[in-house]
Amino acid sequence: MSTHVRVVGTGLIGASLGIALSRRGFRVSLDDPSPTAVRLARDLGAGELAADSVDAPTVVVVAAPPDVAADVVLDALKRWPDALVTDVASVKAAVLEGVRAGGGDTTRYVGSHPMAGRERSGAMAARADLFHGRAWVVVPNPDSRSDAVEAVTRIAEAAGAAVTVMDADDHDRAVAVVSHLPQVAASLVASQLRELGEPSVALAGQGLRDLTRIAASDPRLWTQILAGNATAVRDVLHRVQDELTELIGALDLLETGGGAGALAVVSRTLGNGNAGQARIPGKHGAAPTAYTTVVVVVPDRPGALAQLFTDMGNAGVNLEDLHLEHGLGQPFGLAEVSVLPSAGERLLAVLSDGGWRVHD
Amino acid sequence: MSTHVRVVGTGLIGASLGIALSRRGFRVSLDDPSPTAVRLARDLGAGELAADSVDAPTVVVVAAPPDVAADVVLDALKRWPDALVTDVASVKAAVLEGVRAGGGDTTRYVGSHPMAGRERSGAMAARADLFHGRAWVVVPNPDSRSDAVEAVTRIAEAAGAAVTVMDADDHDRAVAVVSHLPQVAASLVASQLRELGEPSVALAGQGLRDLTRIAASDPRLWTQILAGNATAVRDVLHRVQDELTELIGALDLLETGGGAGALAVVSRTLGNGNAGQARIPGKHGAAPTAYTTVVVVVPDRPGALAQLFTDMGNAGVNLEDLHLEHGLGQPFGLAEVSVLPSAGERLLAVLSDGGWRVHD
Repeated sequence: MSTHVRVVGTGLIGASLGIALSRRGFRVSLDDPSPTAVRLARDLGAGELAADSVDAPTVVVVAAPPDVAADVVLDALKRWPDALVTDVASVKAAVLEGVRAGGGDTTRYVGSHPMAGRERSGAMAARADLFHGRAWVVVPNPDSRSDAVEAVTRIAEAAGAAVTVMDADDHDRAVAVVSHLPQVAASLVASQLRELGEPSVALAGQGLRDLTRIAASDPRLWTQILAGNATAVRDVLHRVQDELTELIGALDLLETGGGAGALAVVSRTLGNGNAGQARIPGKHGAAPTAYTTVVVVVPDRPGALAQLFTDMGNAGVNLEDLHLEHGLGQPFGLAEVSVLPSAGERLLAVLSDGGWRVHD
Repeated sequence: MSTHVRVVGTGLIGASLGIALSRRGFRVSLDDPSPTAVRLARDLGAGELAADSVDAPTVVVVAAPPDVAADVVLDALKRWPDALVTDVASVKAAVLEGVRAGGGDTTRYVGSHPMAGRERSGAMAARADLFHGRAWVVVPNPDSRSDAVEAVTRIAEAAGAAVTVMDADDHDRAVAVVSHLPQVAASLVASQLRELGEPSVALAGQGLRDLTRIAASDPRLWTQILAGNATAVRDVLHRVQDELTELIGALDLLETGGGAGALAVVSRTLGNGNAGQARIPGKHGAAPTAYTTVVVVVPDRPGALAQLFTDMGNAGVNLEDLHLEHGLGQPFGLAEVSVLPSAGERLLAVLSDGGWRVHD
């Protein structure tokens, strides 16, 4: 008999998980406070309506907003005394604390954090491959039964995710740095654009665009996330504030012409950024790879990029990374193409033969 | 007779400009304190050696590092009493101040800031199209002669750039926000990764990658840029610090369970980010356009992207933006393809016919 998974909450994450698990042969039943949302998820192939499902689920996945996740987990633990329960909230210590405070059976509870999401939300944005290749942190507590950890791991892997196991505090400290801090930084930088004159904003380049892309995220969801991880986020923001204060002090000294140490502070800030950036793993979770990067001028018309990639494909060269940049008021863009160093020479030769304007 | 442009400083910017102007029929002579650098630029087609050039230049472009730009401009103004002189440093008030303090003839001086650059530096990274479609800010001072402004504008346009005219203070305030602040933010965020454990760093997603890309920039160059624009950078960092302090205060309140207004502060921070981000102009300097975005699953093998773009090209659909995301430990990636809304339906139909796994 197939595992019966109850998904409670059919937004982007819940509906996507329902679709992914249904396709992998799981039996999925769907519940949501909104009858419209749950029917939409059903129609998208995420599973059957919970109302039509009489037997108890084996595993319950709570995909509710972070601020109600603990309550919904408690409900599930009480309602189905044999079910294993997980949640997918992006903060974990607060949910565990809530489950403990509510007297929930923590032996059957294991936290989860699938690190997937989009700028869009809701079931309409759902897709079966939302978790493909993404990290999914499985977060046991000291009481968690091993079969609960295994069940959640199996679900994450069935959805195509790569499982990492961490405890709640380690998880929260990690996401405070790699996910919550970037959101705050993007929002604070973008915030400074509000009062800037039109001609000044028009000088925005690719650096600013890339840096502020996530500033477009949903404030309601992110308020819950930051509030739910207040301690860890505050700790890392304090460290940023200390470095920022030191930098501002150095700029003050430079403004008044003094301070031999001031330049050293500015330089160290930038050097620390180099060192931290170099630690980010490359594609496929591997160690950072030094790719060979080639810049190609691409006319802004249908088929031009196709031709570029056809030429690359014909040469048997696999693209490792791609960065497109559009010219300001110009009928072409630049494609920064990264390939493995071993393929660099071959790529250059083939592109040059194909008449592409290429720069290494 | 063609205009004789002397380029002083043959790094990335100077060499690229030399190549671009030479190809457009300008006569370019090259000078640099390093005999190796200037010969390399000559060999790349950037122009002739200044040593071989006996007549005085019409226009001098100083492409020296920011901290020596004023001195090199002063030299040029004195050495060639009829030449018009510009510099390309990314800070402008400090250079103008230096030229004035040195008693330079400011009627023949006009500042410039071509907003082009790469993570790489040096003449080896030079390319003729470095300025294509980029903004080039022309920065007259109150004494600048109109023929000097026109000469610099002509050079910028010959290099393919889009000219914007601003005074030095407006320029410096603008780049403090759209360029220098993003650099500082990226460096400060990346800096926090230095002490993070390996499993935590491995949770890094696309948001962090995009946000910290420019943290890899050259600390020597950026120390000069930030020091040269200390006042304007300090001012915007103060505003960021104020918002950061308020946010930290709100998180402190939330940690201790109190503070109804605390959630409002967090939410406002994120909302301000939304508002600022929405002001960034879209492609080609136009107003931001709401594109239709489609996510396509792309197998990680040579030719797969080529096929995708071939199918798009055959459908006459032009790509407006592209974002590639690689799966963690998975043999495929996701391509987020943006097209004009009018092309959305056609694109979906063609991709679906082509057997692509597509998500809108």
